[in-house]
Amino acid sequence: MTLPTKVTLVEVGPRDGLQNEKTPIATATKIKLIKQLQAAGLTRIEATSFVAKNKIPQLADAREVITGLDLTDPNCQISALVPNTQGLDAALDCGVKEIAVFTSVSDTFNQKNIGCSIDESLTRIEAVTRKAKPLGLRIRGYISCIAACPYEGNKAPGLTAKLTRQLFDLGCDEVSLGDTIGVATPNTIEAIINAVAKAHSLDTIALHCHNTYGQALANIFHALTLGVHIIDSSVAGLGGCPYAKGATGNVATEDVVYLLHGLGIETGIDLNQLITCGKWISHELGRTVQACVTNAS
Amino acid sequence: MTLPTKVTLVEVGPRDGLQNEKTPIATATKIKLIKQLQAAGLTRIEATSFVAKNKIPQLADAREVITGLDLTDPNCQISALVPNTQGLDAALDCGVKEIAVFTSVSDTFNQKNIGCSIDESLTRIEAVTRKAKPLGLRIRGYISCIAACPYEGNKAPGLTAKLTRQLFDLGCDEVSLGDTIGVATPNTIEAIINAVAKAHSLDTIALHCHNTYGQALANIFHALTLGVHIIDSSVAGLGGCPYAKGATGNVATEDVVYLLHGLGIETGIDLNQLITCGKWISHELGRTVQACVTNAS
Repeated sequence: MTLPTKVTLVEVGPRDGLQNEKTPIATATKIKLIKQLQAAGLTRIEATSFVAKNKIPQLADAREVITGLDLTDPNCQISALVPNTQGLDAALDCGVKEIAVFTSVSDTFNQKNIGCSIDESLTRIEAVTRKAKPLGLRIRGYISCIAACPYEGNKAPGLTAKLTRQLFDLGCDEVSLGDTIGVATPNTIEAIINAVAKAHSLDTIALHCHNTYGQALANIFHALTLGVHIIDSSVAGLGGCPYAKGATGNVATEDVVYLLHGLGIETGIDLNQLITCGKWISHELGRTVQACVTNAS
Repeated sequence: MTLPTKVTLVEVGPRDGLQNEKTPIATATKIKLIKQLQAAGLTRIEATSFVAKNKIPQLADAREVITGLDLTDPNCQISALVPNTQGLDAALDCGVKEIAVFTSVSDTFNQKNIGCSIDESLTRIEAVTRKAKPLGLRIRGYISCIAACPYEGNKAPGLTAKLTRQLFDLGCDEVSLGDTIGVATPNTIEAIINAVAKAHSLDTIALHCHNTYGQALANIFHALTLGVHIIDSSVAGLGGCPYAKGATGNVATEDVVYLLHGLGIETGIDLNQLITCGKWISHELGRTVQACVTNAS
């Protein structure tokens, strides 16, 4: 078994996790969450999304959240999702240095999620990257539904490989592959990773798993043995896709860290501090912590 | 990735799952559960334990449960745990054809769990196997705390390998290796499996994982790639070790079946029927189903 010696976790709780919460969350709480995650040792945090305020009311305070953070911290890269050039302009205005753009291998999912087809999403992404690239911004591309779409069913690995290539061609520095509805098993993940790895180094590929069917850690473990060393996760398992069934959403950062440390892989993260942070934010949101490690301790 | 084409699941819910339930459960309910599991395609079910009635009141109806079942069903092997020769006699009296015996790599855990040291437990097991073997009974040996004991901490793989050898020498036909408190990660499991496999075929070794820290499916998946093809699990995730922390216990059969079917491995199990059974028994017990697959559907 060959494993990476070090894994970088990309914490998506503050954005992907909070965006579907019904309860309004104070901007100060969001900022406190991100600062606690930084203190626990997370080195990459997706803080918010500069989306139209009426689309995702929960993230309407993107500007206030970002300006409440220290974007110059050398130990932590803060990023923000931008759906279009208006979002990019707002992010630039706040001094954001890393952005993320979003698409899916499913036309139907893209239509329901961001209101456009795959091709149209690439046109939007191109407009964003064309402006962001010369300014030196780091750009992460998300591909969702890599294993299956809740509307269109299973997706061939070649579709993800093709879209990954298109995102890199448009200027992305990294692509995060998302099993958005959590249906993959390790063989599915292997087929996708192998298809993508034919043309790209795994140094710039992240895996984004949801634990809806309980398979996330098995998938992540297997991806590590294939050479993936950038993993997305969400503190306390915050979030979940509103278009996917099941109570659970993003794999919990706590459970991923337990796996990684157990495997002898460095993360730079203090698990106890992370558990405390996850308990605190879950209490603030009136949710149950969706991290086995926390419930066991 | 090399995987077995077929995996045998050993359903431990009716015994290991129910033994710690506080609520009294009607004998008829236990029998119905086992029959539903048979109907869903489970081919091996541990039905109860012939333990002293005052020790585990929940299993005081062992005789009634066993005599309510068809022990001659060629498609399903029903077994019962026997702690000593008195238990064996009671089991034999009911026509039981497969028994299970129990020990641990931890003296302290054995003392707390079955009131004797490791050596004393082997003496008890020897008395049981000496009588059971000539009668043609199939004997399964359990080893608990293979990765760590809640009292004594981490355990070296060599201890499990040695105890496995001792159980086979005493006449066991199969040994089930239990990560009783669910703390192992795939590297821990690999070290134990490799240590055991030096002297024994994996055709007679089972893995028994708890999901307390969320690692069970990653551990099971990795064990499959190492050649293990007998997996213990519990419908709806029933059970859990009373001496281990955490709300979750045995890995849910539903989640294991989802993994196996996703990997293209045959189990002979109808997942939908199993989900229905898990929902029903959880409702009967007033518990939440501890299976992600069920909560997702």
